[in-house]
Amino acid sequence: MLESRTPISIPEAIEKVMTYKRKGSIERVSITESYGRYLGEDIIADQNVPHFNKSLYDGFAIRAQDCVEVSSEHPVEFEVVGEIGAGSVFEGEVKPFQAVRIMTGAQVPHSCDAVVMLEVTKSYEKEGKTYMALSRRAPKWEHIALKGEETKKGDVLVSKGTRINPGVTAFLATFGYADVAVVKQPVVGVLTTGSELLDVNEPLEPGKIRNSNSYMALAQIIRSGGVPKYLGKLEDDFDRCYEAVEKALEEVDILLTTGGVSVGDYDYLPAIYEKLGANVLFNKIAMRPGSVTTVAERNGQLLFGLSGNPSACYVGFELFVRPIVRSFLHSPAPHLHKTKAVLNGRFKEPNAFTRMVRGKITDEGGRLVVTPVGMDKSGAISSLAAANALVVLPGGEHGYDKGTEVNVLHLENEGTSSLWV
Amino acid sequence: MLESRTPISIPEAIEKVMTYKRKGSIERVSITESYGRYLGEDIIADQNVPHFNKSLYDGFAIRAQDCVEVSSEHPVEFEVVGEIGAGSVFEGEVKPFQAVRIMTGAQVPHSCDAVVMLEVTKSYEKEGKTYMALSRRAPKWEHIALKGEETKKGDVLVSKGTRINPGVTAFLATFGYADVAVVKQPVVGVLTTGSELLDVNEPLEPGKIRNSNSYMALAQIIRSGGVPKYLGKLEDDFDRCYEAVEKALEEVDILLTTGGVSVGDYDYLPAIYEKLGANVLFNKIAMRPGSVTTVAERNGQLLFGLSGNPSACYVGFELFVRPIVRSFLHSPAPHLHKTKAVLNGRFKEPNAFTRMVRGKITDEGGRLVVTPVGMDKSGAISSLAAANALVVLPGGEHGYDKGTEVNVLHLENEGTSSLWV
Repeated sequence: MLESRTPISIPEAIEKVMTYKRKGSIERVSITESYGRYLGEDIIADQNVPHFNKSLYDGFAIRAQDCVEVSSEHPVEFEVVGEIGAGSVFEGEVKPFQAVRIMTGAQVPHSCDAVVMLEVTKSYEKEGKTYMALSRRAPKWEHIALKGEETKKGDVLVSKGTRINPGVTAFLATFGYADVAVVKQPVVGVLTTGSELLDVNEPLEPGKIRNSNSYMALAQIIRSGGVPKYLGKLEDDFDRCYEAVEKALEEVDILLTTGGVSVGDYDYLPAIYEKLGANVLFNKIAMRPGSVTTVAERNGQLLFGLSGNPSACYVGFELFVRPIVRSFLHSPAPHLHKTKAVLNGRFKEPNAFTRMVRGKITDEGGRLVVTPVGMDKSGAISSLAAANALVVLPGGEHGYDKGTEVNVLHLENEGTSSLWV
Repeated sequence: MLESRTPISIPEAIEKVMTYKRKGSIERVSITESYGRYLGEDIIADQNVPHFNKSLYDGFAIRAQDCVEVSSEHPVEFEVVGEIGAGSVFEGEVKPFQAVRIMTGAQVPHSCDAVVMLEVTKSYEKEGKTYMALSRRAPKWEHIALKGEETKKGDVLVSKGTRINPGVTAFLATFGYADVAVVKQPVVGVLTTGSELLDVNEPLEPGKIRNSNSYMALAQIIRSGGVPKYLGKLEDDFDRCYEAVEKALEEVDILLTTGGVSVGDYDYLPAIYEKLGANVLFNKIAMRPGSVTTVAERNGQLLFGLSGNPSACYVGFELFVRPIVRSFLHSPAPHLHKTKAVLNGRFKEPNAFTRMVRGKITDEGGRLVVTPVGMDKSGAISSLAAANALVVLPGGEHGYDKGTEVNVLHLENEGTSSLWV
């Protein structure tokens, strides 16, 4: 009666899942609603930046050649022939030894090629005219940002699939993207199975525990960039579970279930996949926790069968679901970002399977250290709150000593394009 | 006519601002709405976890003493006297050489002290009864999570002021927080001044530029944890600006203005602070960009006068506004997180003021490297999109060579309690 399952490696499992990645369609939202979304189009410069020669300071626009001979003993006198506030334009010709008062950000008159700061000049009136005296040289193009210096019209500035952060928003505004093409967020459904589960608002009963996996997964879905849809909590009943899964597949882009994937008498997911005609990609991974994590697909739609164990559920989401969500968002970097860190903890016992231990990365003067959080015993949730990384401890015949350099996967950072191995 | 201003150091400026930090009040939201918010109360365990001795595997609950003598040659036979599905409870007494079939997560009968995995047993029927044979020993408490092993009732698990991530959500669900006390988010208003500014949906005109600072600041406000309120764009007109600022102060918790803080003829903010009777904390910082960043307070309410220069506006927000928003959210770690990294770039020229250069931190095998993004010329926005950090280059008589170890401030991470210096 006991099913025999063949474990595959974690990277192999991720690659199998990734063959079913899909890209989401595009929708338009207002720039003010776009923070945190993923760009659905490249941002292209609709203008040079600056789109005119721009003064970087308050002062005077002059012709640099007029002050070549200047010194503190021999200041040069300029007649002030106009004033340009930010946003206005001086249309006339600036002649030799003439200057135009100019504000920060304003357009430098076409006949000028330097700006001198107000602070280094002296202004005065003489015979009803305004003059300015300058006692130091101004190199050509001083204090001027040249037209197109920062960005050329037509340049691709930010690529499709980039998460919109404040810097990207500045681009969107500069180049007139009042509405922004963003990728539609995948709807990720969560269905929890287990007769032992109470909902968050129910009082405790003997033998039962509160359903924490669903709410945790809803938060993980938001963090990954998806829209969560809580589809409820089911008793261990085959027919009801089957119906719920079949219905859920119509309502969501991606479906997660938690629990029911093991080999116990009440673990119905394997039979549900079979009845659905779904293709099971794998049902055993050489990983602790979460070896029973199962992923299936039907007509290209992914069904993630996460373990009912909270740690395993958490890890399974980040390793397998997150890259699918990020791929849907067109991110070129869907995978968890791997780095190396020094292990601040000890794992005395060897394990045949690769352990994924939740940890907290800290940097100690530019050197990364990862501290396992909590004891990471199967079922332990008390360590999850502080975790910002997964420590990868490959399976084998040895444990791991404190001070060993290990691979860690960042949970809160943007991702990486290539799968860590 | 030119005002003389005395620059103060960046940490000194931040400390002055922080003397006016305020803590936000508390509101309750549903657990499903709480992701990313800041906890308004400590999370306290309302139960032991597990709250019963819990089986970690599918198998049989037994008395460990019954299999002390077992070996592969001499298996022990147990009579199977019951079955416990997850969520149900076995009320009877388990006698010597009796076993109870148990599922993962179920409550272990009070007279049992070990669980053996289904895989290592052999079940059979004999004379209408069910038996199970075991051919290896089971140490006491094997495969059982003991009551209270992970968490004791009454423990403070997560502190007020912590940002709610998926791990925190798991706690909230486990301990019955269907509604969560979270800190109200501060409303941060943004008012932009400058006659040269066009809105994002307006076509370009000679001498004018699009208003990117406001939209950038709105995104920075969201990232910091506040609720942005765009209050519009104003011409350089003293009376209209004054009225707008006075009105805005009534509508928001924190007010940002961009532009108008320099010493130009159209820089009205200093006069507005004076007319408002606001206390100017500083109006010059020994920092590039953003030396004119000005902060004032009136009746304890902060008015941040950020520079109109996009880079300076960005840096000013992160250094001065962000810690105030995070303090409002009760975060014990409001400041940008500082680390050390190796500078991948060169700054040939010395600068008397401390430079804050936007950069991108990458880790190269556990060693952090920071690459300045773009040329960081005053006014350049093209580098902002990729930035995830500020490189701190203290002012002095020397430039900085590639390979120098420098301080960097993370922009995307959670913060730190002590101000970097």
